Amino acid sequence: MPLLDKLNWRYATKKMDPAKAVAQDKVERIVEAARLAPTSSGLQPFEVIVVTNPALRARIQAVAWNQAQITEGSHLLVFAAWDNYTAERINAMFDYTNQVRGFTNEGWEAYRQKLLAAYPGRDPQVNFEHAARQAYIGFGASVIAAAFEGVDATPMEGFDPAAVDEILGLQARGLKSVTLLPLGYRQESGDWLAKLQKVRRPREQFVTEMN
Amino acid sequence: MPLLDKLNWRYATKKMDPAKAVAQDKVERIVEAARLAPTSSGLQPFEVIVVTNPALRARIQAVAWNQAQITEGSHLLVFAAWDNYTAERINAMFDYTNQVRGFTNEGWEAYRQKLLAAYPGRDPQVNFEHAARQAYIGFGASVIAAAFEGVDATPMEGFDPAAVDEILGLQARGLKSVTLLPLGYRQESGDWLAKLQKVRRPREQFVTEMN
Repeated sequence: MPLLDKLNWRYATKKMDPAKAVAQDKVERIVEAARLAPTSSGLQPFEVIVVTNPALRARIQAVAWNQAQITEGSHLLVFAAWDNYTAERINAMFDYTNQVRGFTNEGWEAYRQKLLAAYPGRDPQVNFEHAARQAYIGFGASVIAAAFEGVDATPMEGFDPAAVDEILGLQARGLKSVTLLPLGYRQESGDWLAKLQKVRRPREQFVTEMN
Repeated sequence: MPLLDKLNWRYATKKMDPAKAVAQDKVERIVEAARLAPTSSGLQPFEVIVVTNPALRARIQAVAWNQAQITEGSHLLVFAAWDNYTAERINAMFDYTNQVRGFTNEGWEAYRQKLLAAYPGRDPQVNFEHAARQAYIGFGASVIAAAFEGVDATPMEGFDPAAVDEILGLQARGLKSVTLLPLGYRQESGDWLAKLQKVRRPREQFVTEMN
C-alpha cells in the first residue's frame, strides 16, 4: 500500500532548506486533505491558517521554543480548533448540508436537535477538547498529504498556544491553536534526525487481538 | 494525489454486508498505518484492540447506541489511549529508541529528562487528553488506510467508553477507549448515506491565508 511507504518516508524534519519553497498547488492539496478528513458529526470544528508572512512566522518561532523550521520552511500551517460548540455553529453546518444536498430529512433534523441539546450547554473546555481531537484527524491527514507530495513537514505541539492565538488574532474568531505544521524541504546536512531509523513500538506491544 | 481520491471515496458507512469479511492482510495494513503514524515526542500513547469475537462485539454494540456496523462488519478496531503518562512509560520508549538505534545521545537524554519532569506530575486527565489527541492521529491514519484498501469503515465516537473499557478489560492495562472503527464492506441497498454527496465547508470558510 502506497500509504505505508509514505508513512515510512516521512519524519519530523529538524532542518529545512530556506532556499526551497513548496509550490502553491502542493500546499493546496495538503490543506485539502485536512478539509476532506472525517470529523465527529461532520462538524469540522477547526480551521487551518496558512502563514507565509515572514514577520508573523518569526514572531511565532519566538513562542515555539525557537524551532527554526517555522521560518526555514516556506509555509506554516496552524491548526486551530473551535473554542466551543455553539448553536450557531451547529446550525450552520446542518443548514449547509441541507443546502448542498437539496433536501431536508427527518432523521438528520432529529440528529441536529440531539446535538443542540447536548453540546452548547456543556463546559466549553469539554467542547474545545472534543474539537481539538477532530483537528488532530485533519492535522494527521495533512501530515500524510505532505508525504504524498514529497514535501517535508514537522508536526509541532511545542509552542505557547495563547501567544500564537494572540499573534494571529484567533481568539476573536473563536479559535484556539492546537498544532503547527511547517512545510518545506529537508536540509539533510544539518538535520540530526534525517538519517536515523524510525522507531515505533513493535506490533505485539501495540496491537491486541480478541478473537 | 491518490490520497484525495481516497478521502473522497470513503464515507462513514451506515450499513455493512455481514456476508463479507475483510481479509486479514488488509486489516494488518490498516493497523500498521496507525502504528506508523506520528505522535508527540514519538511516545505512541495508545494501542489498538482488534476485536473479531462476535459475543464481545455484540456487547460493545449494546453500549454504542446499538450501531449495527459493529457486528455487521468483520473486524472492530478499538483505539485506546494511555490513561496517564508515567515515568515507566516514558522511559520504556526512550530506552527502546536507544536500543533500536544502538547508541545514546546527550540531546535525546536531556529531552527524556524534560518529559520526565513535565508529564508524570501533571493532572492525569490532562495527560489522558493529550494522549487521546495522539490516538486520533493514528485513528485518522487507519481510516485513510482502510480507504486505500477499498475497505469500508465507520469512525465512531458514539459509545460509552467506560462500558467498553469494562468489556475489554482496558482499565487494568492503563488504557481508555476513545474511538471505534468497524471494518467491513458497504451494503448500499440499506445505507441511507451511501449515495449522498459528501459535505464539507467550502475552502474559503476553512482556510485563511496570512501572506
